[in-house]
Amino acid sequence: MAAQTRFDLLRVVLVATRNPLNLGAAARAMSNFGFVRLRVVNPYQVAFREARSAIGASEVLKNAEEYGTVAEAVADCTLVVGTTAVGHRELQHPLRRLEDGGRLIRKQLGRKQAGAGRVALVFGSEKFGLSNEDFSHCHWLLHIPTSEENISMNLGQAVAVCLYELVRDAKAVRLTEKQAVATAGEIERITDLLRDAMCASGYLKRRPTRDGEERVRRLLRRLGLPARDVRAWLGILRQILWKLRHPESPAR
Amino acid sequence: MAAQTRFDLLRVVLVATRNPLNLGAAARAMSNFGFVRLRVVNPYQVAFREARSAIGASEVLKNAEEYGTVAEAVADCTLVVGTTAVGHRELQHPLRRLEDGGRLIRKQLGRKQAGAGRVALVFGSEKFGLSNEDFSHCHWLLHIPTSEENISMNLGQAVAVCLYELVRDAKAVRLTEKQAVATAGEIERITDLLRDAMCASGYLKRRPTRDGEERVRRLLRRLGLPARDVRAWLGILRQILWKLRHPESPAR
Repeated sequence: MAAQTRFDLLRVVLVATRNPLNLGAAARAMSNFGFVRLRVVNPYQVAFREARSAIGASEVLKNAEEYGTVAEAVADCTLVVGTTAVGHRELQHPLRRLEDGGRLIRKQLGRKQAGAGRVALVFGSEKFGLSNEDFSHCHWLLHIPTSEENISMNLGQAVAVCLYELVRDAKAVRLTEKQAVATAGEIERITDLLRDAMCASGYLKRRPTRDGEERVRRLLRRLGLPARDVRAWLGILRQILWKLRHPESPAR
Repeated sequence: MAAQTRFDLLRVVLVATRNPLNLGAAARAMSNFGFVRLRVVNPYQVAFREARSAIGASEVLKNAEEYGTVAEAVADCTLVVGTTAVGHRELQHPLRRLEDGGRLIRKQLGRKQAGAGRVALVFGSEKFGLSNEDFSHCHWLLHIPTSEENISMNLGQAVAVCLYELVRDAKAVRLTEKQAVATAGEIERITDLLRDAMCASGYLKRRPTRDGEERVRRLLRRLGLPARDVRAWLGILRQILWKLRHPESPAR
């Protein structure tokens, strides 16, 4: 339930978006990461109509709410965060990198009952970003850590990256359990076969070492051989060994 | 220099991409996050030509290398990671969430000299993703933690999110220094003015409290008033106080 609330509390606010593909992409990223509340402020009307009527337009886009001003779009939110590519104007606002700002937003969204509040994450137009007027409605600004050579991100990609930061789980562990490895007994059976094969092939005679057997054993133990592959390896080595010993026989 | 190396060691490999916009978006995200080496495998030729010749096509795209097979595109890499939306087929490979997989890739890219190796991050086509044949060239698979309701991400957005994870800095702190707050002396001057204004307005007479002065003081100290705003607050309160005391005078 907490997770539901959290996703329900975030409003993605797109200001003056011009390209229907970007509206669609932003909605798709929201859907990918489980966010549902899209608000558009003063969008280019053709773009908004086109995006909404596009084949495969998401529920997110269909349910998008339209506002005339940023003030109206964020009126019910307790935290308003603007996004910026930085550097193109003197910022009068506190500026946070996404890693740090994302943490603060997650905190706000995760608060229990009374403390919890709606958060608006505001994105400007493709060409101009957010204006100083737009910024004045924000508590602070967020900045994706881009390379200095190219700070301007595509709108849909910027939305995707920000939302990913909000859902990413620092404690995430592997979804798959650690691969089960073969037992010592299984490896020993494989070792035997490999050593026999090395012997039968003449390898050990041509490259004799004092510690031949141990060497083969170490070689195999360094592989971290998966348990599921033991049968396959045994089969392969048995077949090779058989052929080494019966070179003239037709394949069995 | 270490950073340079790190960005230089990653190859983004796009397999059988069909949409020129996605090729462009992937290249743009690479440029945003400082990665330069794009490889395309068997792209839809029209898309590749269109994307490369598009106005504003990035250097990344212009320098993209074309390969006929995944095997050739990853041949010089020591770690090959495939991306998948999961769930649409039985995976025979270890699968890691982006948070965890990203950590392993960063580790590989950050290794010094002998240990460092090129890493291929492989993305499949928009419609089908990577095939089992493609997967067989990968050491393990990466999965962006999407919502179960919509696991299929746009290609350009998936590339952007993965690359962000590689550059994100868990230790990133605020770019701006903590906002300097007003000194006790400054706050006391503001307190005086506010108390006088409260008095002049009749507020304190109508709502008398035993600890009037202390209460105002606490009120102001809870604000965390920024140093830069002290002059403005003093000016505002002085003006209000003056008007309260000279209601009939024309504005000064």
